[in-house]
Amino acid sequence: MPIERRIEFDLIARIRARVGPGDPELLVGIGDDAAVFLPTPGLALVSTTDSLVVGRHFHQDWPAADLGHLALAANLSDLAAMGARSRWALLSLTLPEADPVWLDAFLDGFLALARSTRTTLIGGNLASGPLNLGVQLIGEIEPERIARRSGARVGERILVTGCLGDAAAALGLGDRAGPELVRRLRRPEPRLAAGRALAGRVSSLIDISDGLLADLEHLLPPDCGAEIELGQLPSSRALIAARADPGERWPLQLAGGNDYELLMTAAPERVPALKGRMEALGLRLSEIGTLTERAGIRCRRPDGSVLEPARTGWDHFGD
Amino acid sequence: MPIERRIEFDLIARIRARVGPGDPELLVGIGDDAAVFLPTPGLALVSTTDSLVVGRHFHQDWPAADLGHLALAANLSDLAAMGARSRWALLSLTLPEADPVWLDAFLDGFLALARSTRTTLIGGNLASGPLNLGVQLIGEIEPERIARRSGARVGERILVTGCLGDAAAALGLGDRAGPELVRRLRRPEPRLAAGRALAGRVSSLIDISDGLLADLEHLLPPDCGAEIELGQLPSSRALIAARADPGERWPLQLAGGNDYELLMTAAPERVPALKGRMEALGLRLSEIGTLTERAGIRCRRPDGSVLEPARTGWDHFGD
Repeated sequence: MPIERRIEFDLIARIRARVGPGDPELLVGIGDDAAVFLPTPGLALVSTTDSLVVGRHFHQDWPAADLGHLALAANLSDLAAMGARSRWALLSLTLPEADPVWLDAFLDGFLALARSTRTTLIGGNLASGPLNLGVQLIGEIEPERIARRSGARVGERILVTGCLGDAAAALGLGDRAGPELVRRLRRPEPRLAAGRALAGRVSSLIDISDGLLADLEHLLPPDCGAEIELGQLPSSRALIAARADPGERWPLQLAGGNDYELLMTAAPERVPALKGRMEALGLRLSEIGTLTERAGIRCRRPDGSVLEPARTGWDHFGD
Repeated sequence: MPIERRIEFDLIARIRARVGPGDPELLVGIGDDAAVFLPTPGLALVSTTDSLVVGRHFHQDWPAADLGHLALAANLSDLAAMGARSRWALLSLTLPEADPVWLDAFLDGFLALARSTRTTLIGGNLASGPLNLGVQLIGEIEPERIARRSGARVGERILVTGCLGDAAAALGLGDRAGPELVRRLRRPEPRLAAGRALAGRVSSLIDISDGLLADLEHLLPPDCGAEIELGQLPSSRALIAARADPGERWPLQLAGGNDYELLMTAAPERVPALKGRMEALGLRLSEIGTLTERAGIRCRRPDGSVLEPARTGWDHFGD
């Protein structure tokens, strides 16, 4: 057997040993041609995939454990944006070399987040080539609770969980970014519990991965627009400490990607109950604007003047 | 919006337009944060993922339509090896450039095979980076019919569908390979119908992607072995025309990857019925050996002498 395939089998055995037998619904796990599992009767299945590419979604020198966390978190965030529970994961790794130390550290980050979100790793694929970290997730949801991107209406309020701009600030600051901002960039917490609590109670829901303005565009009804109140954009203490001038924070909060917060629309009368639900989860929910009949997105400063953002979305590391 | 993301959205819109609305079980398709579908009550779900990497699984100059077919076929072959039906696919493409002509041709190959296997493309991901073609499939199976790799017993016969060695011969011949061999390399037909017919009727089942000997190792019971009758290895007319000497064919058939045939074990008394079932599908089923108490795999020539293969598996393009 060529050495390389033997190493591949060793790596798969390593992953398998760390994952364990899995839940009783898992009929066939890692090590066969495919995984087999029993879905929960009556629930719909939710499936998503996302790949992290070096130089675009992460830097070469980031710790492998952070990459394991981030690759799973980016996918969990998509399930959160549907209102789903996470259940099963496949891991599709293309690696330039078979490095068990790197893989163990990657699994540390991946499996810790998998455990805390009740996600079972059931299979995957290892290939040799330029680094590419692919994850596929299958979750479950009650069909009547699916949270879609469509459904927003003029006059509704725009709301967002947590804080915006931390990850973009960390990217911009590089080595000078403090641990709190770095954690938000490399170890984002997918808003699964928030998604579950919001599903069925908001008119539209999406996660912010490309940037607030870019992702908000997906929620706009045809020929409609939005007005964002810049003074209401939620800032963490770490971001305020790093960027005291709001005029410096806004571009990061409007167009900075990798926030992995949930963005939604809801009728004004529903907002207090939504805030109560998020508060119960220890999560901030901020009203940041309104859907308008006027097409396009306008960002208004607290003094009423309009900010024209240089760009609406962060093309990850690409620009 | 940065130009590149705009192109990404254009490409996604292009894929979405070509795929159409999908089946009634598909509640949310391409264009939301994740796809949502209703599984068939009572069936188990079968999930697999496989990535094709340039230079390892295919050459840079292969037509994009062939790559679309091959990326899906490699994954369908894994579902076939479980005895499953294919249902839903996710496509995770990392592309060096946003080339709509390339993407359209890729989709030609991908979607034609998807249609003929009743597989619906429900979502995916586009990223920018070194070419990486990832597919994830979700199929369905009756829980009592799952065909596993484990289950083989000493004394059982080893059988294989179709012919072996064509793809490896095509790789070795390069530009001199005829269209029949090239088709077997780039356009393999996943044995889904055969897998359905064999599931529940064989003691173990696997697909041959790495090479007969390498994949047979996965079927061997602990501390047991196998004897392969080289004279029984099934050869296509195209392979015999290209390699008239059996001694030249055997290494390709034993260690050549990318055959995507099904390899199985079954009690001797079950073999005639299995052959009948495969014949009804227009597919050859060959008895090529026996499981032995003696550990290791021995390959015996028609004259009784033992061939020691230089290697047991083809590391795709890697060696």
